[in-house]
Amino acid sequence: MNLDELLTALKEGVKSIEEVKEQMKFAQTQEMEDVVVDLQREARCGLPEVVYGRTKSVKQIVDAARVVLDSSGKVLITRVDEGRAREIIEKLPECSYSTKAQAVYKLPDNSETINGKVLVVGAGTSDVKAVEEAAITVRMFGAEAETLVDVGVAGLQRLLSKKEQLLSADCIIVCAGMEGALPSVIGGLVKVPVIAVPVSSGYGMSLGGVSALLGMLNSCASGLTVVNVDNGFGAGYAAGRILLSQKVNAK
Amino acid sequence: MNLDELLTALKEGVKSIEEVKEQMKFAQTQEMEDVVVDLQREARCGLPEVVYGRTKSVKQIVDAARVVLDSSGKVLITRVDEGRAREIIEKLPECSYSTKAQAVYKLPDNSETINGKVLVVGAGTSDVKAVEEAAITVRMFGAEAETLVDVGVAGLQRLLSKKEQLLSADCIIVCAGMEGALPSVIGGLVKVPVIAVPVSSGYGMSLGGVSALLGMLNSCASGLTVVNVDNGFGAGYAAGRILLSQKVNAK
Amino acid sequence: MNLDELLTALKEGVKSIEEVKEQMKFAQTQEMEDVVVDLQREARCGLPEVVYGRTKSVKQIVDAARVVLDSSGKVLITRVDEGRAREIIEKLPECSYSTKAQAVYKLPDNSETINGKVLVVGAGTSDVKAVEEAAITVRMFGAEAETLVDVGVAGLQRLLSKKEQLLSADCIIVCAGMEGALPSVIGGLVKVPVIAVPVSSGYGMSLGGVSALLGMLNSCASGLTVVNVDNGFGAGYAAGRILLSQKVNAK
Amino acid sequence: MNLDELLTALKEGVKSIEEVKEQMKFAQTQEMEDVVVDLQREARCGLPEVVYGRTKSVKQIVDAARVVLDSSGKVLITRVDEGRAREIIEKLPECSYSTKAQAVYKLPDNSETINGKVLVVGAGTSDVKAVEEAAITVRMFGAEAETLVDVGVAGLQRLLSKKEQLLSADCIIVCAGMEGALPSVIGGLVKVPVIAVPVSSGYGMSLGGVSALLGMLNSCASGLTVVNVDNGFGAGYAAGRILLSQKVNAK
Amino acid sequence: MNLDELLTALKEGVKSIEEVKEQMKFAQTQEMEDVVVDLQREARCGLPEVVYGRTKSVKQIVDAARVVLDSSGKVLITRVDEGRAREIIEKLPECSYSTKAQAVYKLPDNSETINGKVLVVGAGTSDVKAVEEAAITVRMFGAEAETLVDVGVAGLQRLLSKKEQLLSADCIIVCAGMEGALPSVIGGLVKVPVIAVPVSSGYGMSLGGVSALLGMLNSCASGLTVVNVDNGFGAGYAAGRILLSQKVNAK
Amino acid sequence: MNLDELLTALKEGVKSIEEVKEQMKFAQTQEMEDVVVDLQREARCGLPEVVYGRTKSVKQIVDAARVVLDSSGKVLITRVDEGRAREIIEKLPECSYSTKAQAVYKLPDNSETINGKVLVVGAGTSDVKAVEEAAITVRMFGAEAETLVDVGVAGLQRLLSKKEQLLSADCIIVCAGMEGALPSVIGGLVKVPVIAVPVSSGYGMSLGGVSALLGMLNSCASGLTVVNVDNGFGAGYAAGRILLSQKVNAK
Amino acid sequence: MNLDELLTALKEGVKSIEEVKEQMKFAQTQEMEDVVVDLQREARCGLPEVVYGRTKSVKQIVDAARVVLDSSGKVLITRVDEGRAREIIEKLPECSYSTKAQAVYKLPDNSETINGKVLVVGAGTSDVKAVEEAAITVRMFGAEAETLVDVGVAGLQRLLSKKEQLLSADCIIVCAGMEGALPSVIGGLVKVPVIAVPVSSGYGMSLGGVSALLGMLNSCASGLTVVNVDNGFGAGYAAGRILLSQKVNAK
Amino acid sequence: MNLDELLTALKEGVKSIEEVKEQMKFAQTQEMEDVVVDLQREARCGLPEVVYGRTKSVKQIVDAARVVLDSSGKVLITRVDEGRAREIIEKLPECSYSTKAQAVYKLPDNSETINGKVLVVGAGTSDVKAVEEAAITVRMFGAEAETLVDVGVAGLQRLLSKKEQLLSADCIIVCAGMEGALPSVIGGLVKVPVIAVPVSSGYGMSLGGVSALLGMLNSCASGLTVVNVDNGFGAGYAAGRILLSQKVNAK
Repeated sequence: MNLDELLTALKEGVKSIEEVKEQMKFAQTQEMEDVVVDLQREARCGLPEVVYGRTKSVKQIVDAARVVLDSSGKVLITRVDEGRAREIIEKLPECSYSTKAQAVYKLPDNSETINGKVLVVGAGTSDVKAVEEAAITVRMFGAEAETLVDVGVAGLQRLLSKKEQLLSADCIIVCAGMEGALPSVIGGLVKVPVIAVPVSSGYGMSLGGVSALLGMLNSCASGLTVVNVDNGFGAGYAAGRILLSQKVNAK
Repeated sequence: MNLDELLTALKEGVKSIEEVKEQMKFAQTQEMEDVVVDLQREARCGLPEVVYGRTKSVKQIVDAARVVLDSSGKVLITRVDEGRAREIIEKLPECSYSTKAQAVYKLPDNSETINGKVLVVGAGTSDVKAVEEAAITVRMFGAEAETLVDVGVAGLQRLLSKKEQLLSADCIIVCAGMEGALPSVIGGLVKVPVIAVPVSSGYGMSLGGVSALLGMLNSCASGLTVVNVDNGFGAGYAAGRILLSQKVNAK
Repeated sequence: MNLDELLTALKEGVKSIEEVKEQMKFAQTQEMEDVVVDLQREARCGLPEVVYGRTKSVKQIVDAARVVLDSSGKVLITRVDEGRAREIIEKLPECSYSTKAQAVYKLPDNSETINGKVLVVGAGTSDVKAVEEAAITVRMFGAEAETLVDVGVAGLQRLLSKKEQLLSADCIIVCAGMEGALPSVIGGLVKVPVIAVPVSSGYGMSLGGVSALLGMLNSCASGLTVVNVDNGFGAGYAAGRILLSQKVNAK
Repeated sequence: MNLDELLTALKEGVKSIEEVKEQMKFAQTQEMEDVVVDLQREARCGLPEVVYGRTKSVKQIVDAARVVLDSSGKVLITRVDEGRAREIIEKLPECSYSTKAQAVYKLPDNSETINGKVLVVGAGTSDVKAVEEAAITVRMFGAEAETLVDVGVAGLQRLLSKKEQLLSADCIIVCAGMEGALPSVIGGLVKVPVIAVPVSSGYGMSLGGVSALLGMLNSCASGLTVVNVDNGFGAGYAAGRILLSQKVNAK
Repeated sequence: MNLDELLTALKEGVKSIEEVKEQMKFAQTQEMEDVVVDLQREARCGLPEVVYGRTKSVKQIVDAARVVLDSSGKVLITRVDEGRAREIIEKLPECSYSTKAQAVYKLPDNSETINGKVLVVGAGTSDVKAVEEAAITVRMFGAEAETLVDVGVAGLQRLLSKKEQLLSADCIIVCAGMEGALPSVIGGLVKVPVIAVPVSSGYGMSLGGVSALLGMLNSCASGLTVVNVDNGFGAGYAAGRILLSQKVNAK
Repeated sequence: MNLDELLTALKEGVKSIEEVKEQMKFAQTQEMEDVVVDLQREARCGLPEVVYGRTKSVKQIVDAARVVLDSSGKVLITRVDEGRAREIIEKLPECSYSTKAQAVYKLPDNSETINGKVLVVGAGTSDVKAVEEAAITVRMFGAEAETLVDVGVAGLQRLLSKKEQLLSADCIIVCAGMEGALPSVIGGLVKVPVIAVPVSSGYGMSLGGVSALLGMLNSCASGLTVVNVDNGFGAGYAAGRILLSQKVNAK
Repeated sequence: MNLDELLTALKEGVKSIEEVKEQMKFAQTQEMEDVVVDLQREARCGLPEVVYGRTKSVKQIVDAARVVLDSSGKVLITRVDEGRAREIIEKLPECSYSTKAQAVYKLPDNSETINGKVLVVGAGTSDVKAVEEAAITVRMFGAEAETLVDVGVAGLQRLLSKKEQLLSADCIIVCAGMEGALPSVIGGLVKVPVIAVPVSSGYGMSLGGVSALLGMLNSCASGLTVVNVDNGFGAGYAAGRILLSQKVNAK
Repeated sequence: MNLDELLTALKEGVKSIEEVKEQMKFAQTQEMEDVVVDLQREARCGLPEVVYGRTKSVKQIVDAARVVLDSSGKVLITRVDEGRAREIIEKLPECSYSTKAQAVYKLPDNSETINGKVLVVGAGTSDVKAVEEAAITVRMFGAEAETLVDVGVAGLQRLLSKKEQLLSADCIIVCAGMEGALPSVIGGLVKVPVIAVPVSSGYGMSLGGVSALLGMLNSCASGLTVVNVDNGFGAGYAAGRILLSQKVNAK
């Protein structure tokens, strides 16, 4: 049975909501106009399909998000400005909006929580957007996310005074623009995974985040990994994969 | 007491080898000509300082590696061609050389092993060097590393026939040149962390690995992270950080 | 007299070769202010001159399109937004507008149809514009075009479930942004020509489609060809050339 | 039965050569050290796996090529310099070497020939290598390939005097370095598919072929497609796909 | 005496207008707020200082242009949109505005005319702006400028039918976007100087004119020279230098 | 009669050398293996075909040069190192070699001289190669070429002391690497055409001449034109076109 | 005591304003939402923290600036447009706004003045913004700043007539767009430090200031240093560091 | 009298060595083949002309260096490998060679010493070459230069333990490759001028030093300045200009 058949069965009273929700986990995809929702994404990759909002219409977003919500009980829609967010939440009233992260989301129930805490660090005030997007994504996995902002390398004492916080995290995400040096310094202080997010703030030769990206790829601190420019979501997802495999591994 | 004083004390019989080795763990740095070895790197970051061989003389390499070996019982020297490797091993006979990885190394004793298995995948024959460098780096952490090569996306069945191997790993490193599409496909199949290594093989517009790097940064598979071009070492180190935090977390 | 009439006149003995050759020189081009319409384009290249709308005024567009329509019975105007499209169609009422493709067009009569079916695939929802522009261009040649969207590599099963559709096409156009990996996967599954269209959607290091373009140029699947970023029109034209030569060849 | 088992069966007399060759067509892959040969490539994509020689050892090349030859009766090894070619042909005496194309190859038997003729054009003397690589690849498909060199746009009459040859081809490949303008001019003269190959000759701002590539991607002639810099092989393969689908279509 | 002193002398009746105008030719510079007009530019370089409008306020433009007009009897102000042009002409009523060229100008008196005719060619409709800017600049030198537009290489017969016009010019300026191939073709047909102007129209990999620029720099036609992207002004000035030296030479 | 027939006629005594030389001027092209010599180049563009030596074999060079020499009485072969030059001159004993310009050449007879003097300036010692290549190319047109080297902008007085020499030239070519500022300064001092040649010397961010090229394209001196990096030949050819049209114009 | 405690003590009358201001110099940082002000910046680096306005809200700017003002008696807020400046000054009435520099600032009291004069030069009218930003930054250090604009290299006499002004400065900042040649010329005339600021004005290949930056980095004048594109602030700060160390050194 | 006349006068006994040396200071330039030595460079810019060795022949180097030595008593020749250095020193026996800096030099006599100490820091072992080139250049000004190597940000304690050395310098040069983060950290710790030198060591996306350069240009530490990649000489010269102006200023 595909999703359309399931929903028809529900509408016609042939199946109960519980039966349909159960069976939806086994449906592969749900095809809509120009959108195909991958219903096995969570089973395969750890989180149900996340809806990238920038290039979709409000209708496309709501349709896709509704399917995800109904089949998994949670949803994340990224890159949505305030105006469109309001329209979306009208249709998806169980969701909230984060202005800083530009994201609409419904977090999972507490019962699904995995262990582990992710610290999301931002070098400067301009990095807040990436920081918040990463933090919400981590929380989508049911994990804890803490944030720490404006501790860049031009005033090292701001960072060093937070050393305990750094050492207590299970994974650290570091968002930075300009020269992108903060991940190198943090990578040299801790043992846990460090994920660097280049940020496109800055001017002149910051080149929309390329400068920070290059700095992070060439870091002299060993074992840093990097995601796309401004991709707080991707960093949060990577941290989720790490905590997830830790939970699995710990069993 | 700094390292020179310790070694003088040893030479003059004031301290025993065991006393010196014990105290060496607390020395901060060892300064040599144009090289300063960071002796607390393992305590802070999980692995003693790794010696980058390309821009150092054989003498500089051997001096630094000897200090690392004596204080930690293991060492990794990267980017060394066969000729220089032979000279180095003459001076450091406890080490081995991997032609494929272009690395001289002495693995840690078994007692230090951490749990977890890393699968290192190479899309094509040209990716073997990065694959082997990553695998040896993982083993430096005392973890298990398996390799799988020439399973690129032009013949998907080669990869799909190895699905079980993919699903049994705790972390996957994927090395690929050209368009760098393999990490996207693998990232869509598994839940564990996936680290992508762009490789500089290829010609024309592969641009020395930039094409693969861009493909990986823009992957439509969520939560991939990326390291520098040809940086198998960095990917292995990142995997080590992940397993290490898993072990800690599992306690 | 247009070119077809001239040639018919020749075939029917109404005009001598010399007369026709002389007159053909005057049917060559139509000069207007800052625009010169090439009236032999269809005879030489398979399709009458296509009007690129972005840098022309509505008047320039309408004048040129009218000449093309009158001499060939069909016309395609690309890159026109909805507002300008409305003004154009007022003057050219035989034309239609596709919002998705941002194109104004009048398809040829059925009698001109050539054999062959082109499948136009889009990796994600953001690729719809290129997909539609390609499909309309294919139809301008009188050929059949089918579309298939949101089957990107992060959820391979979405693509693999459409394998029969892939195998039944005579030529496949694949539009993809981000890492541009879908053409590689499709190119490894089929025998027919595969034309890749990089799309400028995405953010950060997608670099306005350069990342996808590089991925496609470096594809490990053999025999892919590539067109300019967002150039659905060019891909559709290339597919038209292929079907056209097939028809010719099949005679 | 996989390939190793088949070959063992042959060696032990359990199966005849004919039986083994027949069954080899159904084996999926043959795994060797760091190389996995895709034995179904021809069935899927039209040509058995082509061996890219640059990053493989002579032993890896010969092993892979032997498997391809035995299972399909033909083989193409690209990017091999004269010295290595001699070593390879010693082991694969049924093969020939083209100095111009830097390729070792064994063409298919005539009986496999498909209809159609590909014209491979080179703008200047420096494009000969790409021209020959493309021509041999076309011939691997059993099709006819003609070449035409040094007819660049600085002396248009050289090209215009060959107009009949251009008009008689079923598909045209155009190799050009520097500004890469020749494909635009040819694309404006013919109706058949035109595949452009940027060549890395030239100096200064030719940027190793990037200048020619950009010129070709931005061609004002509609429906050109482009392959990677210096990728004569890819262009020949694309032409093979076109002729192949023509043959199929013509039935 | 500097310009301020001269003008004071005029205002106070110490000198007549004719005396002041004569002496102004010998004043070196006129300093205004953030602008210093170079009054010897015409004597040194052939044309009085041209006012680049984009980054100046209307007041700065008018002040500078007035000085130039008064001292030389002609003026050219480039890169001015229609709105600002209207304000400028109100203050400088002897000037005209060209919408196509986005320039305000007052041509020199006929008596200053030099011999020679410059042909300014544009490959497509999008090149009109550069064509007109070049033509007006040529006319500032007192020379004749003819224009010819939409004769790009995709329809060679459009250009070849204008061969006589090409052969009758003393200098040819060719403006082209996209692949920038037209200057190569023209450069191969004529003997006179050919100046190529890359134009920033186009999309995708046209890269704001970089693609056309690279094509022109790498032209296989010998002895082309190139100016900055969209720099019709620079090309017209270069043509003016050529005609000027011809006139001098001819004496 | 084509060239082969002419030469056969000569060999068989049917025609005299004078008759053949006369008729060769009317032959269009001479086809050799992978080379097609354009015999009407001088009539169309001012100089017979120049042989670019870098990508041709000695045999190809000698064959092409012999045809050019016999039909025009002069020849220029660029980009030839000393070793290959010796082999070439053995076969073409009427030619000379310039080590500085890396060119083999036979200048035209004096009777063909055109009026005009070109000054070729080099900013530093590293620019000598481009300077000499430009100067020889100018002399191929039968014009006079003077050189002036090491007068870069870091020591302005070196240049200013040569002002008379600058003012006496009919055309100035300026070769410069690094920041490429010298053409701007010279362009502000003279009225004649100034052609800038970026040179690839320098290190770090000189980017193989790109830095100098950009400086020249963006020059604040009006009416400079630019050729490809290291393209002294192209600059000399452009100067030749200018003098040629001056001569024609002066009639 | 941290800043919050100090301010509470002030509010509750426990400490006087003088006591609090005195102690604030020893507080390390002041944490606000998404902003952490570094209160020891002046003691360490010579100037209190400068507030970068572009990516902050008016509230964030005012809060941070208030802390800086209260603890140091001066403040500089860069990159603020006129509208936001008005809102800021309403809250910080002791500050002024420079439209040219786009900066809000309160200069230090005279008593803090250091010796030395910085000359800030702009090549053209478009460089005024960078010139003014640099000048105000220099004045923040209590030093003297003079400006000189529109003296670019296309009219050398404009610069040479100001030679005495150049020779009387203790440090020179040179702002230039386009080819960025002015710093090279000035660097060759003086002995004092020369700091070059590339400016993003210009069009075509000026590439947003990259062309000027490259010119400055590759300057043939020895000992120039460069800051980021449009970074007048950075250049002024560097000049401040130089004068500061001179003052210290002079004691 | 020019230099040749002076030297002839010396040789013929008309003038004494002292007289000639005195008068040489007033000679402007000395012209040799393809080299013009600027004899007033020291008077204008602080150091006699430095000979850039890479693109000059040994003879050109020796001739130029001899003129500089004789007129100023000191000389610096940069970028000379060991083989050529030996030949040069044979002819200029008063010079020494630094293998690390790849420079031949003769330092000035002590009497000329200026005050001030420059600290030259290298992040890693690979930066030694730039560090030494900078240090020798500083010493050419008669100033003191100290070096400190391998104190990169991956092990911050190595740097922090040298804080006193940092605080005692009058100017700091920081050489770093990879992500180039060290100057940012040092710039945040000190008040004196900090000059950053990007170094081209590293691999993958270090892009020959571009990554480090971008990091330094975008530094979040205020008032850093930057020189070209690997340009230790330029940094040393800039430091010399700073100390020189300090000395002058201190009077």
